[in-house]
Parts: sequence; C-alpha cells; structure tokens
Amino acid sequence: MAQYHLIYWPGFPGRGEHVRLVLEEAGVSYTDTAQTSEGVNEVISHISGGVPDDGVNPPILAPPVLRDEENNLVISQTPNIVLYLGEQLGLLPDPKTDPTGKWKVNELVLTALDGLSNEVHDCHHPIAVSLYYEDQKEESLRRSEDWVKNRLPKFLAYFERVLGSKSAGSGRWLYGGRLTVADLVLFQCVDGVKFMFPKATKKAEREGKYGKVFALYNAVKERPNIKKYLESERRQNYSNGLYRYYKELDFEG
Amino acid sequence: MAQYHLIYWPGFPGRGEHVRLVLEEAGVSYTDTAQTSEGVNEVISHISGGVPDDGVNPPILAPPVLRDEENNLVISQTPNIVLYLGEQLGLLPDPKTDPTGKWKVNELVLTALDGLSNEVHDCHHPIAVSLYYEDQKEESLRRSEDWVKNRLPKFLAYFERVLGSKSAGSGRWLYGGRLTVADLVLFQCVDGVKFMFPKATKKAEREGKYGKVFALYNAVKERPNIKKYLESERRQNYSNGLYRYYKELDFEG
Repeated sequence: MAQYHLIYWPGFPGRGEHVRLVLEEAGVSYTDTAQTSEGVNEVISHISGGVPDDGVNPPILAPPVLRDEENNLVISQTPNIVLYLGEQLGLLPDPKTDPTGKWKVNELVLTALDGLSNEVHDCHHPIAVSLYYEDQKEESLRRSEDWVKNRLPKFLAYFERVLGSKSAGSGRWLYGGRLTVADLVLFQCVDGVKFMFPKATKKAEREGKYGKVFALYNAVKERPNIKKYLESERRQNYSNGLYRYYKELDFEG
Repeated sequence: MAQYHLIYWPGFPGRGEHVRLVLEEAGVSYTDTAQTSEGVNEVISHISGGVPDDGVNPPILAPPVLRDEENNLVISQTPNIVLYLGEQLGLLPDPKTDPTGKWKVNELVLTALDGLSNEVHDCHHPIAVSLYYEDQKEESLRRSEDWVKNRLPKFLAYFERVLGSKSAGSGRWLYGGRLTVADLVLFQCVDGVKFMFPKATKKAEREGKYGKVFALYNAVKERPNIKKYLESERRQNYSNGLYRYYKELDFEG
C-alpha cells in the first residue's frame, strides 16, 4: 500500500496538481482519486463529514486532501500539503545548513498561489462560485482584461526579480540554488496561465522581460520524473477546472 | 530593541492584524510601522526593492512583512508569518505530544483566511484592485449579496463543525483543547466580517446555529492580553482597508 493518498476531483489538474507534482518529482508512489471510478464520491465524502471523527483530524472544508497512512494524518489546503510534503520528501532547503529557508520557500509558494492560481480562478468566477460562468460573463470579461493587463505582468516581474536576486543562489531555481516545492508550484501556475491566456503569455515570452521565469518553467518540464509524468495518463487535461480556456477572455494585454 | 518588527500599512487593521494579535497574545514586545509617521514609506520601500539583496531574504511582493532581528529573517505572507510566530511563541500544539498538530492548525488558519478574509476583500473589489470601489460598485453589490447568502453560512457552519468535533478537544478552542494561532485568526476574521456585514452577522448570532463560533469570538476578546490590546491605541480602527462598511452592501442574507 502506498503511504500517500491524494483526494481530489477527477477531470482537471486544479489545485490537486501542485500535490501531484511534488510527489512525482520525489518519485514516491501514491494513489489518487482522480484515477479511480469512485473518485468523485471519495472527495464528496471527505468534505461532508466522511473523515471519521476520531479525535485526531479536524473536518475538511475542501479538496485537495492528503492522507498519509504512516502518520495517521489527513490534511487539506494546497500550500499546507505542499509544505508538509516538501519537508517529508527533501524538497525544501536543508534544515541543517539553512534552518529558516523553509519560511522563504513557503512565502514564495503562497505568493504564486495567490497571484497565479486564486486570482486566475476568479477571472472566470468573479461574482460567485455557485453561479455558472455564463451567468457572470460580463464581469469575467472586465476582470480578465484587467488581470492580463495589470496583474499578470506584476507577478511575472516579481518572480523574475526573485530569480535574479542573490537569495536565488546560482542556477535557475527560486531559492538557494536548488529545486524546491516553490519551483514546482510556479511551474504549474505558469502552465495553467498559459492554457487560459495563451495570447498574453505568448506576448510576455516574446517581450523577453521574464526570461528567467520561462527558463524555470522549461527546466521543470525537463526534469526526468516530471517529463515522464506529464507524458503519462496520470496527468489530467485542462477542462472546466481552475484554468479554463474561453476565447472571449483571451486578451493579449 | 524589540526582536520583532511588523511592517504593514497604517490606518486599518488589515492583514497585519493577524500578526499583531499573535504577538499581543504572547505578550512579547514588538515595533510596528503603523505606529510611526514614516510607516507608509517603510512599507513601500520593502515591497519595491528596499530589502537589501544580501543573499539571504528574497524580495517581498506585499505586506505584512515580519522582521525577526535575532534570526536575520524577513518574511511575508500572513499565514506564513502566523505559522512562524506560532512556532516561536508556543501558540501551536505541543510538538512533543502532538508532532503533526501544527499541520492541522495551519489548515484551519488558511481556511479562515481564504473564506473570511480574502473572499470578503473581493466583495468590494471583485473586478480589480487597481480600480476604486465606486468603479466596480454594481459588481460588488452582486457579489456581496451572494457572499452573505451562500458563503458566510458555509464558513460559519464549517467552523462550528470543527469546534464540535473530537479533534477540538475539550473547551472552546478549534484544535486540541488549547488556544492556538487558528483561534486568533478566526477571531479577527469574524470581527472584520461583523464590521463589514453587521446585518448578516447579527442574524447569524440570533439564529443560534453558530453558537460555538461566537463563543470562541467572545472568549478571545476576553483574553487578558487581547482585551488590553483592543482597548489600546495600538489597535487600528476599521476604515478603507480589507474590511469596509458600505451601507448598500450590508445585506442580511
């Protein structure tokens, strides 16, 4: 039996993808509800009281959820799971030589998720998650046009600045000269934004101002374990999840 | 000189308030840019390259920022600072008796901030942070009406469920029978929502369905250090920050 079990919606990469990329890069085996026919039911059960009230794990509001069988641990919240696995699997700065490095990596993870995941989700759902996109299309158009023009360059410029700072160390990674969970999270965020806003991201690549960000993106894509994973059937295709393609929202910025 | 220095906008509690409440509950001394006439400049300097590029701390995107003088550490992101200080100041589960408890507390912190802080901010800024409220008022009306009706009860019910679960332990706190940073964060979130949506929160209190949540709120307010702090001039008044009062958004739900 695998130690790690990911509980997330099947059908799109979504927030669960950050967890998958960490597990895949580390090369550990895991199970994933997205790969089973009962996946949806398992997700729903977990967020509606399905975790036994055994005095150990609090109720869960939303997926992704990670179950660590060895430690009898059930945790949710993407950045929480990513930090936990980073510590378990050696994808944070070495605590012996850089005991405070994990706080900086966690900061970068949270900033990438805020700017290039949560904000992007709201580009197609600015009014209410309970409504269809079609019922908030006018507002989505307005929000997406602004996001592509003002927010995308802000976050790309920020990560370009991080990659050019001395704290990044030598090489191509965000912090301390070695690959951490922050690089994997930024990769997935950029990948999702490229899918949702191809015109704006192509323009950003052409302009050349964010060369280090796109070099990191390409470097993660070429990591042996990540490359194998992206080519496998375990990688979900984008569809109606967090990152969506709507022609009318595809502004160039 | 105090060990901890908080760098945050003066003029409203905002996201910095979560950091202040942790420091105040722990009874440690700290400095705060909100208390100085040069505060705004110090914030702006920190988010526009003002942190020396000394190979240690990555550039900062946004406040709040915590500087820990003893550990030569400069970190940002509210949940990151809260977890760091929780560990430093003994406001997480005891790692000796509950080594994985911190992951559950971090999960609760992130969920409170997602639902009752970030989502609420977007009730008055659903389209763009770069625009005035007045330029997105129609969208704010639509979003706030939905939020109060669908999201507020969802999050209150969730935390009521957590408080009633065995993992909360005995007493009134969210996890493990003792006060943690998650309780302080939930207190501030409820306080802000009460300010922004008084009609809906009064109705929620009247209905009695979320008795444990409001009991926690009152219990935090009566903690000796917190009580003293809330009565002091260090506590900022709400104004045009994250939580704002607009009569037209004050839906009852």
